Amino acid sequence: MTHSTSPYSADVRIVGIGSYLPALREANAARLAEFGVDEAFLHRKLGILARAVKAADESIRDLCVQAYRDLTAQHAIAHDEIELCCVVTQNPDHAIPHTAAILHHRLELPRACMTFDISQGCAGYACGIAIVISTMERLGLQRALLFTCDPYSKIVDRNDKNTALIFGDAASVSYLARSGPGYALVDASFGTAPGSSACLRSDDVLMMDGSAVLMNAAREVPASIRGLLVKHGLALADIDRVLLHPGSKRVVELIRSALELDPVKAPFEIASYGNTVSSSIPLMLKQPLHDLAHRRLVLSGFGVGFSWGSCLVELRSSPESANDHT
Amino acid sequence: MTHSTSPYSADVRIVGIGSYLPALREANAARLAEFGVDEAFLHRKLGILARAVKAADESIRDLCVQAYRDLTAQHAIAHDEIELCCVVTQNPDHAIPHTAAILHHRLELPRACMTFDISQGCAGYACGIAIVISTMERLGLQRALLFTCDPYSKIVDRNDKNTALIFGDAASVSYLARSGPGYALVDASFGTAPGSSACLRSDDVLMMDGSAVLMNAAREVPASIRGLLVKHGLALADIDRVLLHPGSKRVVELIRSALELDPVKAPFEIASYGNTVSSSIPLMLKQPLHDLAHRRLVLSGFGVGFSWGSCLVELRSSPESANDHT
Repeated sequence: MTHSTSPYSADVRIVGIGSYLPALREANAARLAEFGVDEAFLHRKLGILARAVKAADESIRDLCVQAYRDLTAQHAIAHDEIELCCVVTQNPDHAIPHTAAILHHRLELPRACMTFDISQGCAGYACGIAIVISTMERLGLQRALLFTCDPYSKIVDRNDKNTALIFGDAASVSYLARSGPGYALVDASFGTAPGSSACLRSDDVLMMDGSAVLMNAAREVPASIRGLLVKHGLALADIDRVLLHPGSKRVVELIRSALELDPVKAPFEIASYGNTVSSSIPLMLKQPLHDLAHRRLVLSGFGVGFSWGSCLVELRSSPESANDHT
Repeated sequence: MTHSTSPYSADVRIVGIGSYLPALREANAARLAEFGVDEAFLHRKLGILARAVKAADESIRDLCVQAYRDLTAQHAIAHDEIELCCVVTQNPDHAIPHTAAILHHRLELPRACMTFDISQGCAGYACGIAIVISTMERLGLQRALLFTCDPYSKIVDRNDKNTALIFGDAASVSYLARSGPGYALVDASFGTAPGSSACLRSDDVLMMDGSAVLMNAAREVPASIRGLLVKHGLALADIDRVLLHPGSKRVVELIRSALELDPVKAPFEIASYGNTVSSSIPLMLKQPLHDLAHRRLVLSGFGVGFSWGSCLVELRSSPESANDHT
């Protein structure tokens, strides 16, 4: 019988991240009276003082192209050898075709390139990393681009207290390749609980029950991270950074507390731009990926669905991976 | 360093398919005069005499649940052990959350279950199979459900000659597991060419340039299939069935002709229900999967994007796969 695979080589790593935050910021302080909240709420509970807002005529593809420009300004990208292009979004420019096909055209990527979008929310980057790396390794693909872009300003009701102060617009692109220093996927863990109506887009407007999302996150995410580490014989002491999706300061504090993590190890740094949904973790990962000072990271997203996902990634510093595994 | 994977085991196979075609059919013959075409066009070029049409109040989740019922009527499904649920669609009930989360709730799937949707068109089943099997094998997941559902009756303008006679509504679900007889993924090949505007949903209406899609398919798909086989030292003579996405009779005939395939080997059998987009190939695969009489199949989809994808799959008949690989 035909061999069903070539020898499996788990050597794909995240080697670069480009990002884009629109320059325009809307300050939350200006809307306190309107929503009956105070400065203390902004600083202590929400942790979001301003939100990045795209221009009305900026499309998803525009935001993604800006992120790609940021990537190419930092890294030499083998543009003509990209074999997979994926966009994580729940706010595409068009439902048909997938955004990845539109970007494929706009970026003039080669013909031998798989294109698809993933619809997932705040767990979208963890999902995307797991799916794209798995597919690359299984099919023997060398290089890929994984975009995230979910500009909620398109769908948030500006007068809805439950959503108007939270979300920021952004895009990111991760460059995945088989050589060069970066973070390889060790393993990942995912879950879903009843709660699909807690964050719902209906008639093109987002409706969210923030306290239901908070409760689900506090219950599910710490156990999920612990389970992933135990499976690999690791403890939190073996992890240098836990990049938690910054849904709000309150949710990050609850998860930190459950896992006994300090703010250095599990940072929350979105005060100036907001919760950028699937782009939040790649925005946080950009600096560690630049410094390469940390050996092991956990990337953990949660939200829409209600669903969650955590990736355990590990530094590969050699140009080739084979020697790293021993 | 931590080992970055458990030993890779390429033993996931498609073990069952459930499907759903709405009972209502609309006959194309009734609309010939209106569109200025004749019976010969229907029979010789289009090959579609009637289209399956869902009820107006049937949602995507409803269609998927019907497909799941068909699956469970045929197969014992380890319902409580489903670890991944994916829906391929470009026509979700809601943009947020992903349809897989809604189905996860409706089908009462377990908490330890990854959920996401894939946005892809007529290459969606090939994409979905490659992505889901790769992810299962990489993360060590045992069982998954892969749904397809793209009821174009939601978005087709009934008065548009380019689209009104072509598409049928359907849903499918593939059960993927690591034991039991079924088809394992040997390899897959994907591509994308400029042509994102040839099939576009704008303002919730589908617009399609059928001749552009036809030309792209005739140029790209035969070469893609040949390339995939050559990579594995196989010829078309080694393949028992080539399941080509039945976009229209004409496009299947063009690809058959380029590959010198006869109609038995590359069937076209959608005259009574139409082009069901990402559900077309699983509908065709259901019978071979029941009979298990064929050793090797190619599943090839193409369309929206313009993008294409082919999976080479091979029969695994033993309960465990390890011995199949030698």
